[in-house]
Amino acid sequence: MPENLTYKILRDHLVAGDLVPGTDITVRPDQILLEDATGTMAGMQFEELDIDSIQVPLAVMYVDHNVLQIDDKNMQDHRYLRTFCERYGLRYSPAGHGISHYIHLERFVRPGELLLGADSHTSTAGAAGMFATGAGGLEVAVAMGGYGFEFPCPRVIGVELTGQLRHAVEPKDVVLEILRRYGVRGGRGAVFEFYGDSVVDLTMSGRATIANMIIETGATTAIFPSDTQTREWLIQQQRENDFRPLTADPNAPYDESIRIDLSDLVPLVAAPHSPGNVLPVAELPDTPISQVCVGSSVNSSYDDLATVAAALHTQTVHPRVQMTVTPGSRQVLRTIVESGVYQDLMQAGARMLEPVCGPCVGIGQAPLQGAASLRTFNRNFPGRSGTAEDQVYLCSPSTAAASALTGRITDPSTRPAIERRPAAAPHTEIHDALITIPLPVEARASVVVERGTNLVSPALPEPVSDSFHSRVLIAVGDDISTGDMAPDGAIAMSVWSNIALCAQFMFNRLDPGFHDRAKNWHGGIIVGGDNYGQGSSREHAALIPMHLGVRLVAAKSYARIHRRNLIAVGIAPLILPAGAPPSTVGEEWTVTGLRDALVGGASEVVVDVSGRSAPLALQLDFTPGERDILAAGGLLAHIRQGGRVPV
Amino acid sequence: MPENLTYKILRDHLVAGDLVPGTDITVRPDQILLEDATGTMAGMQFEELDIDSIQVPLAVMYVDHNVLQIDDKNMQDHRYLRTFCERYGLRYSPAGHGISHYIHLERFVRPGELLLGADSHTSTAGAAGMFATGAGGLEVAVAMGGYGFEFPCPRVIGVELTGQLRHAVEPKDVVLEILRRYGVRGGRGAVFEFYGDSVVDLTMSGRATIANMIIETGATTAIFPSDTQTREWLIQQQRENDFRPLTADPNAPYDESIRIDLSDLVPLVAAPHSPGNVLPVAELPDTPISQVCVGSSVNSSYDDLATVAAALHTQTVHPRVQMTVTPGSRQVLRTIVESGVYQDLMQAGARMLEPVCGPCVGIGQAPLQGAASLRTFNRNFPGRSGTAEDQVYLCSPSTAAASALTGRITDPSTRPAIERRPAAAPHTEIHDALITIPLPVEARASVVVERGTNLVSPALPEPVSDSFHSRVLIAVGDDISTGDMAPDGAIAMSVWSNIALCAQFMFNRLDPGFHDRAKNWHGGIIVGGDNYGQGSSREHAALIPMHLGVRLVAAKSYARIHRRNLIAVGIAPLILPAGAPPSTVGEEWTVTGLRDALVGGASEVVVDVSGRSAPLALQLDFTPGERDILAAGGLLAHIRQGGRVPV
Repeated sequence: MPENLTYKILRDHLVAGDLVPGTDITVRPDQILLEDATGTMAGMQFEELDIDSIQVPLAVMYVDHNVLQIDDKNMQDHRYLRTFCERYGLRYSPAGHGISHYIHLERFVRPGELLLGADSHTSTAGAAGMFATGAGGLEVAVAMGGYGFEFPCPRVIGVELTGQLRHAVEPKDVVLEILRRYGVRGGRGAVFEFYGDSVVDLTMSGRATIANMIIETGATTAIFPSDTQTREWLIQQQRENDFRPLTADPNAPYDESIRIDLSDLVPLVAAPHSPGNVLPVAELPDTPISQVCVGSSVNSSYDDLATVAAALHTQTVHPRVQMTVTPGSRQVLRTIVESGVYQDLMQAGARMLEPVCGPCVGIGQAPLQGAASLRTFNRNFPGRSGTAEDQVYLCSPSTAAASALTGRITDPSTRPAIERRPAAAPHTEIHDALITIPLPVEARASVVVERGTNLVSPALPEPVSDSFHSRVLIAVGDDISTGDMAPDGAIAMSVWSNIALCAQFMFNRLDPGFHDRAKNWHGGIIVGGDNYGQGSSREHAALIPMHLGVRLVAAKSYARIHRRNLIAVGIAPLILPAGAPPSTVGEEWTVTGLRDALVGGASEVVVDVSGRSAPLALQLDFTPGERDILAAGGLLAHIRQGGRVPV
Repeated sequence: MPENLTYKILRDHLVAGDLVPGTDITVRPDQILLEDATGTMAGMQFEELDIDSIQVPLAVMYVDHNVLQIDDKNMQDHRYLRTFCERYGLRYSPAGHGISHYIHLERFVRPGELLLGADSHTSTAGAAGMFATGAGGLEVAVAMGGYGFEFPCPRVIGVELTGQLRHAVEPKDVVLEILRRYGVRGGRGAVFEFYGDSVVDLTMSGRATIANMIIETGATTAIFPSDTQTREWLIQQQRENDFRPLTADPNAPYDESIRIDLSDLVPLVAAPHSPGNVLPVAELPDTPISQVCVGSSVNSSYDDLATVAAALHTQTVHPRVQMTVTPGSRQVLRTIVESGVYQDLMQAGARMLEPVCGPCVGIGQAPLQGAASLRTFNRNFPGRSGTAEDQVYLCSPSTAAASALTGRITDPSTRPAIERRPAAAPHTEIHDALITIPLPVEARASVVVERGTNLVSPALPEPVSDSFHSRVLIAVGDDISTGDMAPDGAIAMSVWSNIALCAQFMFNRLDPGFHDRAKNWHGGIIVGGDNYGQGSSREHAALIPMHLGVRLVAAKSYARIHRRNLIAVGIAPLILPAGAPPSTVGEEWTVTGLRDALVGGASEVVVDVSGRSAPLALQLDFTPGERDILAAGGLLAHIRQGGRVPV
């Protein structure tokens, strides 16, 4: 029976369950990816598991977010993470070494393996024929501790690529086209698996761009076959032995199939404030820009930067435009220096930043309020740039370069074909001496993990109450991102190691009174819309409500990772029925029998709402595994009670 | 009659007064240097003068401080400054282009000319045989408007350099030696003029290091002859025509003379928390470090970075140490890339930052609390690094490199002589296309200066009251820096364009209640110690007390620039008599006849202090020009009243 590539890899790693979409499966990851922003919480929760060493072959902690160091909190985090890695056997990639997803692609991906990461864009490694997906920090900590990763089995969408990309159309436009078709909800529960005659034309960095940003559809991940491009990449990385060829079987079944003729594509842009708000650059009204940012965990590769340098060559960025360039890693930085790409970018006037996440998460380079900022990044949720009323557009490197020169968002295909070819990458110099090697197991126990005052372990959740009376704290609209709950930016993210401090920022953009109200009311209920909690995997978006005493979230639908994070901290994400009347702040909800409904497998719980004659029937849409976690009082409690065994 | 170099240049620019130390002189500057941190206030005050175009041959605005952009305030500043420059005829150097003092040395210095800058380290240009000094933003704006620069004529200290620097001893150690001898007060009122057989051995960047940091003695500036080194430098910069040879006359008189035998010097370090707290590295106790930062407006030259790279070559920075390197300018950056210095620094593990002020003013890279941070910078005032309880040591590039490898502060002369010579600078590529050319005069009037909501003009001062009754708001110790009044750091400096917001940070480190008390008490009196207001030229340190209603500052003695800034905003800096009893917060002062004393030329004003039987006699130590400004209600009012005429 022919099988698609996704299920081949999942089957190889399956330790419980069957490959039936929507049912619980447990897989054993080969690799774990952590980064500092979510990694301190993941680390502190791992320490709660009381495990002596990591129980996976490879785990890498990358410091790539909180590295501006505007006060001493960032360095406390770094100190904690370095000693945590020494103590438990992880590898540590220090601040300034590069963005996790790039370095992982360079140094650690292995076709056929399974990677779990505490970062939504972990999917990037799908470029190399891996099953790679993101999850909340606690779920990743638990998997790193040897308990496997339990999640709902995804369905698989086959994406056939045909034809050839035209001049100035790039892999970024491919993923923007998928976002144009699917929006930010359409990919939920799915893996996008690429195949077809044109896949082989996409380089590893082009595939990485697509696999990274596919997440914005709500998908679980994307995957590409492991083929000659993969082999070529691994040879460049002096890791040919890690190569194995991998494709779907001929005539493999897919739950859904689509085709993209690459030759049909045009330069696209995602307009404010959603990666799903996609339209052709040519259809935009005249849009002057004040900033162009190239880089982030997507479009920071050598190819991307060489393309920009070739387009800018001998010209200077428009005087009203600030342009920044962030290489993906030190390897990329070294390569652009050797090839002259760096010099060309500098000569054109670009500000060359460190290889870190930086402006993509509002850690520096916050744009002018209300003025358009054009970025090759993957998200443009409101405020993510660090500016409250930002206007961020997402695009490809070619579109960014053309626009940097003209000072307005410009279709690069309307400009003369670049005479000068992007400089070929010189011999890749491997530069990973700064990534630590794990200590021998016997040396680990004596390491003292240094936990500064900025690092505070999150409290354990209270078990879900059966019946309670509580007030609605806030009622929000559709597609609210986790960035509204635990905001991005150098100031807000510097306190991500301390939930009580993070909590002060929750829903600030939408309702500055939220935090104080939640404190004064000793918790309450959050009412959400569709796709509640989209975007980043940050479990802070669940830990903060837990800290504030939120008893219940009721939303029309949820984004995958945030939904799991709520469950992991013992908050039940219930479903609002279609046509439920809108809620208002202060509305009183009387919930009866929630715990019984969870334990008993019921699909509904009835809530009395003040001022309404008809009761509200909230739906319980949980797998048996999820019900167990909620009944236990969250994932940590579930494990302590023996609900999971090492796999 | 033979003359020293300082007086030759001053005489060439003198428009009023006589060259008698301590008396008022007015000079006509050839050049004006501004940077963004102090430049927005300088700009807004310039606009108050109602002048159509700048009235000096050259003025350059450098954006080098507020460039992290952690929210949108920084970009508002940049937008204002760029349009301000277009409107009034200044040149504009954009964010990321480099540090003002380095670029100015590269592109604009001219031996024999006079430079006034709104930055204390403007003295750097003294390396090139200029008289170059810093002042508050308003004084610089007034000079830029054509009114000349009035200041007390300095005395001149002749510094004879003999002998040769030994292995691993550097120009930084020369200026640290001067600080060891003079401390942070000993240079007040003086220019350090260098001469002697060994001057010619010091490169332009070595001289720049000394001229930059001389300011920490409290000096007005330093000056070097214009000689073969100067010519060499200008040829490299393709500006040979700007060269003219200049030295003191043989047997020129000095007010004081000292000699430094360079061969006697050893590697020195300034320990926390003062640049004057100097001792040999060899005499330090064992000091583990968590951070090494190379760069800032001192020690960011090609020579400096090549020295560090040579010392690090093929080795890796100690794993417990974070190392950053900040080139001084894009020219330096370009040159280290071409020569391989950049690659060597990267290979060793250094984080390569943009050519901006950055960590030197706590804008990024704030160190761990209580852990030693070793920096090649010029100041280590408490908290300046962005960390409240920092431990910053200042040193030379060689000491920084040796220590980065060992993880503790290390005397570089104890390590094997560097086998590898620092890489020679390749052909210098001039890279100044981003620095704007002034618009033609006729095109300027139509430029709209864009002033965002973050930019608020400071209010005009109230004229000095004759008699009043007021309470002591705070009584501080000796050597309080302006950084305690308007703190450094990415967060605090982002509001430097709005005095009301800045005010919230005043004296925060010393007394978090200061701001609210000053508001509640509707102003009051500040009591200071010796050398009150040392350090940076930031006039915010005077504008904030004016905004808060401070009527009087009484200190044992003052730092030069801050004293003048107080006068410029109409606050009288009076002198506490020797042996005055200590003051306490809330003490009530009754001042009688202050205005009369100022106008009448009196040298004393008597104050009744609550709870004391004896009245307090405060001394008035002002030049006639200063009395005029105070009587008028500050410098702007003085000009509006016709107290100054264009020169």
